Parts: sequence; C-alpha cells; structure tokens
Amino acid sequence: MQNFEYHNRTKIIFGKNTEAQTGAEVAKYSKKILLHHSGGSALKSGLIDKVKSSLKQAGVEWVELDGVKPNPRLSKVYEGVDISRKEKFGFILAVGGGSVIDSAKAIAIGALYDGDVWDFYDHKKTAAEALPVATILTIPAAGSESSISSVITDERGPWKQSVNEECIRPVFSILNPELTYSLPPYQTAAGVCDMMAHIMERYFTPEKHVELTDELCEGTLRAIIRNARKIFSGGERDYDARAEIMWAGSIAHNNLLSTGRIGDWASHAIEHELSALFDIAHGAGLSIIFPAWMKYNIDVDTPRMARFAAKVFGVDGAFYDYKQAALEGIFRIKNFWHSIGLPVSFADAKLDPSRIPEMSKRAVKFGPLGQYRSLNEKDVEAIYRIAAE
Amino acid sequence: MQNFEYHNRTKIIFGKNTEAQTGAEVAKYSKKILLHHSGGSALKSGLIDKVKSSLKQAGVEWVELDGVKPNPRLSKVYEGVDISRKEKFGFILAVGGGSVIDSAKAIAIGALYDGDVWDFYDHKKTAAEALPVATILTIPAAGSESSISSVITDERGPWKQSVNEECIRPVFSILNPELTYSLPPYQTAAGVCDMMAHIMERYFTPEKHVELTDELCEGTLRAIIRNARKIFSGGERDYDARAEIMWAGSIAHNNLLSTGRIGDWASHAIEHELSALFDIAHGAGLSIIFPAWMKYNIDVDTPRMARFAAKVFGVDGAFYDYKQAALEGIFRIKNFWHSIGLPVSFADAKLDPSRIPEMSKRAVKFGPLGQYRSLNEKDVEAIYRIAAE
Repeated sequence: MQNFEYHNRTKIIFGKNTEAQTGAEVAKYSKKILLHHSGGSALKSGLIDKVKSSLKQAGVEWVELDGVKPNPRLSKVYEGVDISRKEKFGFILAVGGGSVIDSAKAIAIGALYDGDVWDFYDHKKTAAEALPVATILTIPAAGSESSISSVITDERGPWKQSVNEECIRPVFSILNPELTYSLPPYQTAAGVCDMMAHIMERYFTPEKHVELTDELCEGTLRAIIRNARKIFSGGERDYDARAEIMWAGSIAHNNLLSTGRIGDWASHAIEHELSALFDIAHGAGLSIIFPAWMKYNIDVDTPRMARFAAKVFGVDGAFYDYKQAALEGIFRIKNFWHSIGLPVSFADAKLDPSRIPEMSKRAVKFGPLGQYRSLNEKDVEAIYRIAAE
Repeated sequence: MQNFEYHNRTKIIFGKNTEAQTGAEVAKYSKKILLHHSGGSALKSGLIDKVKSSLKQAGVEWVELDGVKPNPRLSKVYEGVDISRKEKFGFILAVGGGSVIDSAKAIAIGALYDGDVWDFYDHKKTAAEALPVATILTIPAAGSESSISSVITDERGPWKQSVNEECIRPVFSILNPELTYSLPPYQTAAGVCDMMAHIMERYFTPEKHVELTDELCEGTLRAIIRNARKIFSGGERDYDARAEIMWAGSIAHNNLLSTGRIGDWASHAIEHELSALFDIAHGAGLSIIFPAWMKYNIDVDTPRMARFAAKVFGVDGAFYDYKQAALEGIFRIKNFWHSIGLPVSFADAKLDPSRIPEMSKRAVKFGPLGQYRSLNEKDVEAIYRIAAE
C-alpha cells in the first residue's frame, strides 16, 4: 500500500428537500454570489426558483449566469470570470450536473487569477486559490460535487483538458435524489457509466496490496449495477434506487477509493478526444472506450481483471482460467452498458473511425497515458481500433 | 435511505515515516501545545522522542502529560484540564491509542468550559467548542482518530460514558502502520474486534434500503478478517496487512458507513459495563457481548443476519434456511474471535456472573438501549446471561 493523504472537506447534505437549506449554508460564506446553471431542466423544473427563494430568505444577493452546455465551454468560463472580477463575488453556487459544476470551478480559479484561466488547463500554471464553490447536484455522474476535478473544452481546438487541485473542491454539496427522477434515461445511463469508470480507473492499479479499497470498489460497483437495473426496470421514481446511485456517484470520485493506490486514467484521456471531437456525452464515450481498453490490456495483470469479472459480475472462477474469466467480464460489462441504452462501439454511436489517427496523436499531446500500463500513440490507436471493430 | 449530513474534516496522513510531518502540521494551528500520551510503549519505542524533535524543528513548544490508562480515567482528564487552563494551550496532540485520544478530546472540551467536564459525559451539557485535537495513532481499534466520540471512565462510580460531538473530531491524524508491528497480540486482536463491532453496530439497522453502505460494511469486514488472519499467521511485521487493518479501523468509525442509516449501539453500552466493572479491554468485552446480542436478536430481522453470515463469513445460503444461516454466522464470528485469542464468554475472561443484575440496571440508566431493537433491563440481563452460558 502506498503512503497517502486523505482529506475530503466537502460537506454532503443528502436527502429529500435538502435544497431548502441552500440559503442558510451559502450565507455562512458570502452574501453576494454567482448563481451558475444551464438554463435547462433545473430552470424548467422550478428548482432554480426554489433556490432563489432560499437565497433571498437568507439575505444572499446573486447574479445569474446560465447557458452552460454539456462538455462545458471555455467561452462561458471567460464570461463568468469577467462578471466575477467586476462584481467581486465571494462565492459561486453551481446548480446542475458535472458540466455546470466544472464550469463553476473554472470560474472560481479564473476570478482570482490575473492571466488567462486556460493556463491552468493547459498545464502552464498550477491553481492554488479559488473562490469557494458549492453545488446542488441534479445529475449523478461526474462526482464533481466533492472532487478536485474540473474538465473544460476550449472550442477553438477543440481541446478538452482538466485541472485537479484541492482549492476547487466544493465546500458543500446538496444531493436530493428526487431531483433525478425526471432525468432522461440516456443521461441516467451515461451517469452510471461515468461513475463506474471512475471506480474502474482506480481499480486497475499497478499496486498489489490494496485489499480494503479493492473491496470498497467492488461493493460500490455492485450496488451501482443492481440499482441501475432497478431504475431501468420501471424504477425511475424509486427513491432508494435513485439515492444509492446518487451517493455512489460521489463515493466513486471523492478519492476514498484511491487511498493507498495509483489510478490509471488512460481511458478518461482517450475518451476526452471522443467528446471533444464528436460532442458525445462523456459517459457514453466511456462505455465505448473502457471495454476496448480492458481487452487491449488483458495480459497486464490477468488475475486482477479476472477478479474484477468474478467479484463485480459474478463470473465463477471455478469454471474459467484467468484470461477466459477476464474476457467474460468484459463481455458482461459491455452487455450491461448496452442493456441500459449506451453505445459500446464506434458504430453504435455513429462515430467516424477515419478520425482515429488524429485523435490518437492528440490524446498523447502531454505524453504517454496511464499507470496500469503506459500507452503511447500506437497503443491508443489500437484501443480506438478495438472500439471501432 | 434516511436523509443525512456527511462531513468528515479529519485529514488523514497515512504511511511509512509520516510521524516526521508532525511538527509542520501542528505549527499550522498553534506554537504551544499539550502533548498527551500513556508513558508506555510510545515512550519506550522512541516515538515520543521523534515527535518532540519534529515539534522542536517546527518551533512548537509543549507541556507533557502522560500516564493515560486503558479505559481512560476522569481524574487524568481533570489534570489535563487544569494544566490547559493555566498554560492556555492552543492545541492538544494525542500520541497513542483510543484511550489517549479520548482523554485528549475530553481535555479539549474541558479546557474551554467553566464547569465540570463530566457534565458533558453525564448528559447534562452539550459540547459545542473544543481546542483542536490531533493524533498520532499507535493502536488501530477505536477509530477515535477521525471520530466524534470520546469515552471516559469516572472511577468514582465506576461509570463509563461517552460524548459524541463534531467539535472533538481530530483536525488531522497521522497513521503509520509500522508503529503497530510491536503491538502485543492481545491488543491487536482487541482492536480488530473493536473495529468490527463499530461496523456491525451500523450494519444491524432497522433501515431497509441501504444497499451501498451494506456493501461497504461487508467489504470492510472481509478485509479486516483476512488481514487479521495474516497478522496472526506470522505476519506481525507484514506492512500491507498492518496497513489494511489500520485504515479499516478509521473507515469503520468515520461515519461513512452510517450514511443513510441508523446504527444500533446497544452492544457497546452493554459492554461498557463490563469494562467499567472488570477493567477488561473494550474489544475483549465486545467479543463476549456481540455474539450474545446477535443470538438474542436473531428473530428481529433474520434475513439481514443471514446475509451477514453469507457475505462476511461465506455461509452458503443455498444450504441453510435464514435462521440456520444466521446461527452459523454467529458460530463463525465467535470462532474467528476465539482463534485470534479473544474471550467469547464470561468464563473465558473469568468474569463474575453474579454482577449481572447490577450491570443490567446500570446499562439502562439513561433509558432503553438500541435501535435495531429497543432493549430494557430484562433484555440486557438476558444478553449477559447468554454471554455467561
């Protein structure tokens, strides 16, 4: 087990009607804030109105900035940074899914920085301070509500890049599973895949002795799979199933599951090229890439991949050798993702395979990818090819 | 799933040689501190000297208060409170196991309170402020290094009572598994039982839909059992096994495993009477009480107890009915605890069963115990009787 520090400061406020606590919680930090959202479902559902009334009650003033799109854009971040500098906000409240939250985090570091906020995403600068950010989560997926990550797309490239720094971890996050009842099935499914991938990026590690966190990873994955099946079998409004999925999405990415181990994260980087080029949902890109990554890396640590198959998908080790078991696990995860409506190949999502050489080059822009196995341009290309089979 | 707040602010610094970071971390809070320890193994091993040299290097002054005993005493707490008031410390550093940490937490609330610190333990007052406390853990067991709990014995009763308040949660805790190599086997075993009991108190809940945290509880228990077996099979100096146990002890009690559910905690209260009267290690009292509690409550939710047997101890549900499976699980947990040298009956620990009526009365002093099933004096007496069989 590796040495580690674990310090997740995000306060989670979880359950029915918890959005009513927004104003009181925000007022502990600032009385003048940026209210950031997409202008889409959170507005239509009446959630934004509820939030405003809670803010008003607590004497908190806000300026609204909406229009955040999936795969959040740098141009919107620039807009937010400009307003924040002018209005001197003390706080940013994100109401929405990972895209809104990631956009809010980018604004939070940009507001306190004299230069171009893209410097942080382009690895030219390290972010050390940010306005406090909090979230009201509406889409369980990215885990951004308690993570140190923000992923932004510079549409001029397009480039999709990330910042991972402690200073952008939300100070609190409000999670009400009822807010997810009305999610379109495709978004629920993409979220399920995204959170599973966050766990799997940590699970496939070169570290050998990480038994406790292996158990926690496997258990969280099983809980996600079972409860996703409930939701997709008529349980759209099953509070408990929605609650398990929502809490699992946070646990998947709050770094508890990384303690003592190194994660891989190559699949995320390989996927980012798909969503940068084709504007596909991140979770739907991951359901295409991750099985291909597993197949390409099946010989790296076959017992670990076989254990994954056994513990997460019930593949009975007694009837298989390690490699067969690992292959059966890959078959089952593709099958599961397909069964909830996700694409598992380029063809499923109508992606153009002729862009593969270009994406492979771009994916390794900052050097080789991955820790479980280091991947160069040729490796990445081979993974895209498997996904395009 | 129940609504919940989850906010664990303790920074965990985990791994080899991490005690060298003590001074730098403490200096962020205060330059004048109380250094609290037992005067036993941490002193002999040279750990206290290392800590002092790290404090000195960081320009931190300290006053030393040692002599904390297992089942930490109120008289020592009074001593610490007096010194703290006089010296106006800004911080308390506990070096040791749960007893030292619990004593430090008591001093931390006592130092800022005009009255008698026992008022908090005697349920007359609620603790709302405390000096910041940090820990260097030497015994994985109580989980006090990141919990809101402190248990103190007023030797005049003797009464053993607890405080559970956010203000006493340590600000950081340093966990180096190497420091546990030299633990006597009995202390390792009692610690293993204590952390297992912390999980089981949460696992046996009246809440029906808590699938994710059920998985996390079961996985943590399996990891503890497997790694304890390694340690007790010649692995005293197996770093990874010691590390899994040490991290599991924190996770068992940092409240993640309680999210969305209600715990029971009757076994803890029933055990407290044993350690108050017979001064037995808390973990060794729990290995006597918990199986008896399970047997007495086997009909409350037999499927849950059968699931525990199946998921934690591999009892194959296909060959048993629920009650048989549950009984088999109780047999296996007693067997496991006994195999690592713990008592599982009054006779094993040479406890005097004639004190049972007295202990039963005292255990319910503040009212009935437990949430899984509410227990009155007669119930508690029946549980002691099972344990004395």
